[in-house]
Amino acid sequence: MLENIRVVLVNTSHPGNIGGAARAMKNMGLSRLVLVDPQDFPSHEASARASGADSILENAQVVATLEDALVGCTLVLGTSARDRRMPWPMLDPRECGVHAVDRAAEGGEVALVFGREYAGLTNDELQRCHYHVHIPSDPDFSSLNLAAAVQVLCYEVRMGWLASQGQSKRADKVEVASPRSEQLSTMDELELFYGHLESTLVQIGFLNPENPRHLMSRLRRLFARSAVSQSEMNILRGILTETQKAARGEPHKRRSEDV
Amino acid sequence: MLENIRVVLVNTSHPGNIGGAARAMKNMGLSRLVLVDPQDFPSHEASARASGADSILENAQVVATLEDALVGCTLVLGTSARDRRMPWPMLDPRECGVHAVDRAAEGGEVALVFGREYAGLTNDELQRCHYHVHIPSDPDFSSLNLAAAVQVLCYEVRMGWLASQGQSKRADKVEVASPRSEQLSTMDELELFYGHLESTLVQIGFLNPENPRHLMSRLRRLFARSAVSQSEMNILRGILTETQKAARGEPHKRRSEDV
Repeated sequence: MLENIRVVLVNTSHPGNIGGAARAMKNMGLSRLVLVDPQDFPSHEASARASGADSILENAQVVATLEDALVGCTLVLGTSARDRRMPWPMLDPRECGVHAVDRAAEGGEVALVFGREYAGLTNDELQRCHYHVHIPSDPDFSSLNLAAAVQVLCYEVRMGWLASQGQSKRADKVEVASPRSEQLSTMDELELFYGHLESTLVQIGFLNPENPRHLMSRLRRLFARSAVSQSEMNILRGILTETQKAARGEPHKRRSEDV
Repeated sequence: MLENIRVVLVNTSHPGNIGGAARAMKNMGLSRLVLVDPQDFPSHEASARASGADSILENAQVVATLEDALVGCTLVLGTSARDRRMPWPMLDPRECGVHAVDRAAEGGEVALVFGREYAGLTNDELQRCHYHVHIPSDPDFSSLNLAAAVQVLCYEVRMGWLASQGQSKRADKVEVASPRSEQLSTMDELELFYGHLESTLVQIGFLNPENPRHLMSRLRRLFARSAVSQSEMNILRGILTETQKAARGEPHKRRSEDV
């Protein structure tokens, strides 16, 4: 489905940017590059920056005009600075990624269009786009490198694609704690640990059972946040056991070898 | 607030990537660049690729070790491939941006850490990170250019920042972790703790320095998940000190009364 999405670079000056764009595309799973009247292509510098994405350069289509590049497209998204005089439907990169993927999934052909390094797209070119896409940047230093701009939009296409495949959480349903495959300690194992910890702290003289203050509740909170696994619990219990032996002056063996 | 977020590049080979990273940062409103043992800096090539972001290069801090680069940080996010053997809390770039902005808004210092062009971060370096960040990429061609990776994470930081400022139309309700009012331990305080913990485990005979296995990395992971506060750190350090005294057979006082 990502093969329905093409990247179009208009009148690029620096071949290094073409190579950088090709690499960014391939990293994100895109493959179709169309070059409108590039100033220097093919070139060694493009291949060097592509760094393994040569296949994209070899298969790149070189055309004379933007019109040629957009043949067959039902959705054209053109990058633009925010403050153009032209009032046009404007998307941010995230919306662009979702929209491109939705259209491609329906079988439509989609183009992401990037302008010249210094001058961007002309007004005439911008008017061929269904939407303009603005990459949010510091207004005092707003012009992204061309390959960097390609990277951001291709990244958002991939995020949109992963979400559509159910391989990624949707932006509005992000859960932070990435699930762990380890078996977590049960509540009863935790209680045994806290009991062991408390008696050890008394034994080494850190906890006065007659004036315990909030010490144990603070330690419980710390370990609760961590969601201790069963194998971690074995380590913690082992440390406590060795601490007790040391406090009693007993000889020890080197336990880390069992871990 | 964005000034609380630093970009750390570890042992970068190509000065062009340093320049590209500086430009990406400045585009996204970030300014603090820290270079750990760069192979070629300052350099003409870095300045050329920075293309107007020279101020970031001029103010870049060059340090010898990752530890130096992380002084004062309470949140360290390290880029990583997905399929490492090391199970670690993993964020996608979007979560990374939200989390970094949340922490910076609370006044915390945040580091985004990027590894070497070909080898990434070492396991030791990855273990100093609270979270690993994976930029989703095509598994068949997964290695992003360094400056492109910096661009993606800085872009997500800006998207998170715009949302936090109410300047973004889609205010993602992404909550990473419920904010805690306590002051969190900094990376340097955590490293001192891990050093103290390790020597204590050797002293009580739980850790064999000649065959440490993965014990310390497993304990680092456990405490990293917990985001230890400074007052909790005082308790943990106090426990270690009393454990050492007990192991030496010294008399103790009842410390919980001071907590």
